[in-house]
Amino acid sequence: MADELVFYSNPMSRRRIARWMLEEVGAPYRVEWLTFEGSIKSPDYLAVNPMGKVPAIRHDRTVITEAAAICAYMADAFPEAGLAPPTNQRGDYYRWLFFAAGPLEMAVSVKAFGLEVPKERERSIGSGSYESVMDTLSYAVTRHPYITGDRFTATDVYVGSHISWGLQFGTLEARPEFTAYWDRLKDRPAYLKAKALDDEEMHRQLAAAKG
Amino acid sequence: MADELVFYSNPMSRRRIARWMLEEVGAPYRVEWLTFEGSIKSPDYLAVNPMGKVPAIRHDRTVITEAAAICAYMADAFPEAGLAPPTNQRGDYYRWLFFAAGPLEMAVSVKAFGLEVPKERERSIGSGSYESVMDTLSYAVTRHPYITGDRFTATDVYVGSHISWGLQFGTLEARPEFTAYWDRLKDRPAYLKAKALDDEEMHRQLAAAKG
Repeated sequence: MADELVFYSNPMSRRRIARWMLEEVGAPYRVEWLTFEGSIKSPDYLAVNPMGKVPAIRHDRTVITEAAAICAYMADAFPEAGLAPPTNQRGDYYRWLFFAAGPLEMAVSVKAFGLEVPKERERSIGSGSYESVMDTLSYAVTRHPYITGDRFTATDVYVGSHISWGLQFGTLEARPEFTAYWDRLKDRPAYLKAKALDDEEMHRQLAAAKG
Repeated sequence: MADELVFYSNPMSRRRIARWMLEEVGAPYRVEWLTFEGSIKSPDYLAVNPMGKVPAIRHDRTVITEAAAICAYMADAFPEAGLAPPTNQRGDYYRWLFFAAGPLEMAVSVKAFGLEVPKERERSIGSGSYESVMDTLSYAVTRHPYITGDRFTATDVYVGSHISWGLQFGTLEARPEFTAYWDRLKDRPAYLKAKALDDEEMHRQLAAAKG
């Protein structure tokens, strides 16, 4: 179907960034739920995404993986949603999207998995130390109400999801500026709707698994 | 100065992605060299980039850090260079830019640093196993001559830099498809010019250090 929008996901996938972004955009989409033990490695899904990972979206014949890429793609593909700055004003927009997808994600993962980076090699690993990444994130969320200024963008969906997740699971320090930033996002109707839809499916699957 | 473009760097910084991108765009810029032991932590530079990291660029009053963000920003800020697809055709462009900045960077770093991710947690770390990341990269570079199709884009600067670096330092498997892809990029005049300029400065600094 021309311009069909399909969301491939699992309600237990660790972050629900893509669903939130889809709801912010507001275009109709259908969901295909995949199981980590089964359908995610099926030939049908591998034909869509050879990585066998979720989330992914398919928009007509274009497949997009990586939650941050989904945010950037959707904002550009649906400009009427107003979730990306004009292309000549995208400094902060890209800077903090890539900061969260790269150094923040890596620093949090390295810490969560108890991996030790020797002090003298912190520079080489690109992300820098966990502390310097936290300080940089504090800087990013305190410059304006939203990441790029007075207006909510796709970068807030992505950075906000990292902060929400990190505060909930203790992988981020509970700094007051992180909480204050998340307080500006957490009641967005699109976020609440995405959360309710994913929670509903998660409970349905858990109930089915119990028989 | 209005629209001044400044490139903050160190010739020994491990990847030279940003300089290549600046040369692809072709807009005039000036370079400020920073030393890892000194000027990178100076108040002057921290006022530009509180992370105290290079590379960074400043375009008028906009500061951009993260090499991938610099590529995306420059392509959009200088549309006449033709390095970004139209905003309604950016699926592959964003997908592989974020894949390289996230999972690829993380998988290579984790392996290079000898960090061990328990097998059962590979899914949780987001990047997946090193092997699956290599397979995905093979897929990305064999679909078309360039990442997004027949045309070179900013995503090729970024993915190509990862591949060039990885082949040179052995952090990537030397798969024939990686070599074939890099062969399509390595003689680009902008790449050669950027490399020559950085090499010259590196040798100048090394000679100065030796007295």
